[in-house]
Amino acid sequence: MSTAETFDKLRAHARETALVASISGLVEWDELTYLPPAGGDWRAEQQAYLAGVAHRLSTAPELGDWLAELRDSDEASDPEGDIGCCVREMSRRYDRETRLPGDLVEEIARTSSKAHHAWTDARKADNFALFLPWLEKTLHLQRQKAEAFGYGDSPYDALIEDYEPGETAASVGRVLAGLRAELAPLVQQIVGSDRTAPSELVRKSFCVDQQTAFGKAAAAKVGFDFDSGRLDVTAHPFCGGAGPRDVRMTTRYQENDFADAFFSTLHETGHGLYEQGLPADWFGLPPGEAISLGIHESQSRMWENLVGRSQGFWRHFFDPLGKAFPAAMKGVDPEAWYFAVNEARPSLIRTESDEATYNLHVIVRFELERAMIEGTLAPADLPAAWNEAYASIVGITPPSDANGCLQDVHWSAGLFGYFPTYSLGNLYAAQFFDQAEADLGDLEAMFAEGEFAPLLGWLREHIHSVGQRLSASQLVERVTGKPLSHEPLMRRLRAKFAPLYGF
Amino acid sequence: MSTAETFDKLRAHARETALVASISGLVEWDELTYLPPAGGDWRAEQQAYLAGVAHRLSTAPELGDWLAELRDSDEASDPEGDIGCCVREMSRRYDRETRLPGDLVEEIARTSSKAHHAWTDARKADNFALFLPWLEKTLHLQRQKAEAFGYGDSPYDALIEDYEPGETAASVGRVLAGLRAELAPLVQQIVGSDRTAPSELVRKSFCVDQQTAFGKAAAAKVGFDFDSGRLDVTAHPFCGGAGPRDVRMTTRYQENDFADAFFSTLHETGHGLYEQGLPADWFGLPPGEAISLGIHESQSRMWENLVGRSQGFWRHFFDPLGKAFPAAMKGVDPEAWYFAVNEARPSLIRTESDEATYNLHVIVRFELERAMIEGTLAPADLPAAWNEAYASIVGITPPSDANGCLQDVHWSAGLFGYFPTYSLGNLYAAQFFDQAEADLGDLEAMFAEGEFAPLLGWLREHIHSVGQRLSASQLVERVTGKPLSHEPLMRRLRAKFAPLYGF
Repeated sequence: MSTAETFDKLRAHARETALVASISGLVEWDELTYLPPAGGDWRAEQQAYLAGVAHRLSTAPELGDWLAELRDSDEASDPEGDIGCCVREMSRRYDRETRLPGDLVEEIARTSSKAHHAWTDARKADNFALFLPWLEKTLHLQRQKAEAFGYGDSPYDALIEDYEPGETAASVGRVLAGLRAELAPLVQQIVGSDRTAPSELVRKSFCVDQQTAFGKAAAAKVGFDFDSGRLDVTAHPFCGGAGPRDVRMTTRYQENDFADAFFSTLHETGHGLYEQGLPADWFGLPPGEAISLGIHESQSRMWENLVGRSQGFWRHFFDPLGKAFPAAMKGVDPEAWYFAVNEARPSLIRTESDEATYNLHVIVRFELERAMIEGTLAPADLPAAWNEAYASIVGITPPSDANGCLQDVHWSAGLFGYFPTYSLGNLYAAQFFDQAEADLGDLEAMFAEGEFAPLLGWLREHIHSVGQRLSASQLVERVTGKPLSHEPLMRRLRAKFAPLYGF
Repeated sequence: MSTAETFDKLRAHARETALVASISGLVEWDELTYLPPAGGDWRAEQQAYLAGVAHRLSTAPELGDWLAELRDSDEASDPEGDIGCCVREMSRRYDRETRLPGDLVEEIARTSSKAHHAWTDARKADNFALFLPWLEKTLHLQRQKAEAFGYGDSPYDALIEDYEPGETAASVGRVLAGLRAELAPLVQQIVGSDRTAPSELVRKSFCVDQQTAFGKAAAAKVGFDFDSGRLDVTAHPFCGGAGPRDVRMTTRYQENDFADAFFSTLHETGHGLYEQGLPADWFGLPPGEAISLGIHESQSRMWENLVGRSQGFWRHFFDPLGKAFPAAMKGVDPEAWYFAVNEARPSLIRTESDEATYNLHVIVRFELERAMIEGTLAPADLPAAWNEAYASIVGITPPSDANGCLQDVHWSAGLFGYFPTYSLGNLYAAQFFDQAEADLGDLEAMFAEGEFAPLLGWLREHIHSVGQRLSASQLVERVTGKPLSHEPLMRRLRAKFAPLYGF
């Protein structure tokens, strides 16, 4: 076969895989939004069936043959070209899929289901001992997985590859150590301030119907295309999809907390804008797919924090907010509102933490999961190590394991190497945003005028349209001219929080 | 292999088929409820992919082998037994699927898509000539389909088999002729009455949110289990499903028409109750599936008309209605309301017609489509034949083809043999309802007390739980002791409309 013919076969195979994956995406979205309670058992069967079809497709021997053939072609030599990008990324995934023994895959699936139940019980009962045997088993299986994949310095390197390809325990450790060294003192300056944010302003009564309309209008205003997507309600907000022009975001509303729904809507909108900006013609193939979880998170955090919690943003949205919620917003001062949506203080729960302290929570998790995977921390010692790390890094000590090392679902699901992508996202976002401002001028002045198209256009051009033609670190270098650093984020945090908290 | 082993293989195959069909059901439901506008192209690809998988499963050669093997077993000799029922019904479908040449299937699919567009244009432009060539082509293909299936007296027999297995042009013609002979004079008596229903009562302002809540409460009250189903909004109401405990109904609301949404909700609830009453353990296999479209329609029409438009029903629901819509219902007399929801008058459009005249619309269509399929009516002569039939059967002459022979989608979609199932449903419903009353006592007295469980329990026992162990005509004989007749329906219509219209 000619290279073109082989590539056509590869594309057709990828298209079928994408059809199955997108159907699975819809089925999962429906499960979380509209599935009737008694429909769960059959839904699990449907998901298992689709997962089986997807697995057969992703490990099909002919896929390996085509990739081997294409790898030797001239057309594959350009790593950013259509064929070069596809061969590199699809080979990486194919090799990983086929290196995992079938019985290990099954054992991991079975264990994660049981571990999840054990974790739920343990958290509810605030009893780490209930989860410990499952954590031990999960770690054992994750290390087996790392062995099957192979790695250089640390088994953690083999695991992070699923979420942030190209990064390692060492590379992530370096950048997070730099961040920690500057961020922890900044948070202590905030703690030492005698000012407190007027957070009661966001906790008045905000009618849920109005919140829904206001959130959708804001998402549309910043550029989310509701002809190609939706916003619904789930217990835990997420952004998924059912096709190249069918992006499904969700959020949740509480009448007495405007900020929770609004910023989670902007967060998911950031994810949704990335999905809507990926090249639709390449849907399901590497040139049409997101680079990594960290790059995805950079888009959500940018719109949530760097845009949505900026002064410029609220210069534009403050009046519409007053019109939408006349009672709650009566007499509220714009500067007080800005402080209220930027409250920062060390807290116990990662998912409820603020822009300043969030990354400290992630750093704790990264250090502990790396140590568990590398064997330097025994799972039985996790609660003590967790509390010690919280005391020294975040500055507070959890009163219980339920609000401590049992708070997150990730480890019960076998997700080791996932946590650092949250902080990488924040770091990428700040570095990209600096560059966008260097290219476009004063972004906040644009936001104040309701102009979000320049930033979105810049992201479309420099990030969304790239697909997986570049790795995350290549993208950062290409776009900003520098390797990833904690400095842009730290500069922004200092510039925001020093005047708010007066230091 | 032993019979049990072969049957296990058959069941596993049917389970996979049911998984695919139920995923397809969800995907279609989503397309009609929540799909973003730009998602349509990819959605069509997803549906085509699932249809391809379903077709491969339903025509798999091993399925034919297993069925042949089971047909010869002792266990298959009981036609109502698990194996007997499965072998009979699955063989019937398998034979039909495999008798159709692949190129005919494709040609029908291609043509129906184009014919649908032509029909849409023709109806919009009120220009039958635009649709005529596609109607001719569709008829040609439908006759080819009938030849491929084979038939006894009429090619129409081969087509109706897809919708009402076991019925023929002759058997349906007989029962509908009996109905027509008595129904047309009854409708003329209504036309001749000097009374008119106070239909303005249902056309006041009924807040859509309240209609939604009231409709859902009524559906739940009569027995629909919202733990195993939903009610959403679509342009055209339907009842579909995504699993054995996941029944998806839809309706539509107009602020100025209470009756439209409420009775379409009750109609779909009737379908939904049947789906929820089928044996879930047999989901996807004949003992767990609906017998026919006509039996399905008998359930929807029973709850819509025989229950929902009865005096007993409104004796129970009139007070809640007044509480839900205090302004619209202020001063409304219960008897006037009952007359308003039972308005009858000949009209042009089938889907908007009432309990009394509805079947006349169906009789017109049955006679004309039978004549076209049998070749005694040329498609070019359809408009004239349609208008003549409307004048003589319904008693009015359509002023345009758009409101005449172009009003229904069915023929453009190649659905010949489908229309009579609507009237069969009405006939089955009345005959079943008579029997339920004979077994249970005064049903309307129960409805007046809010007691719908006795009727639902009776339907569960005698109809829903049967699955396809009996054919429709066997079921009617088994349940009512008599073959299907137009008399129970005519008796009920006379008993309702004579006092309302005073004759």
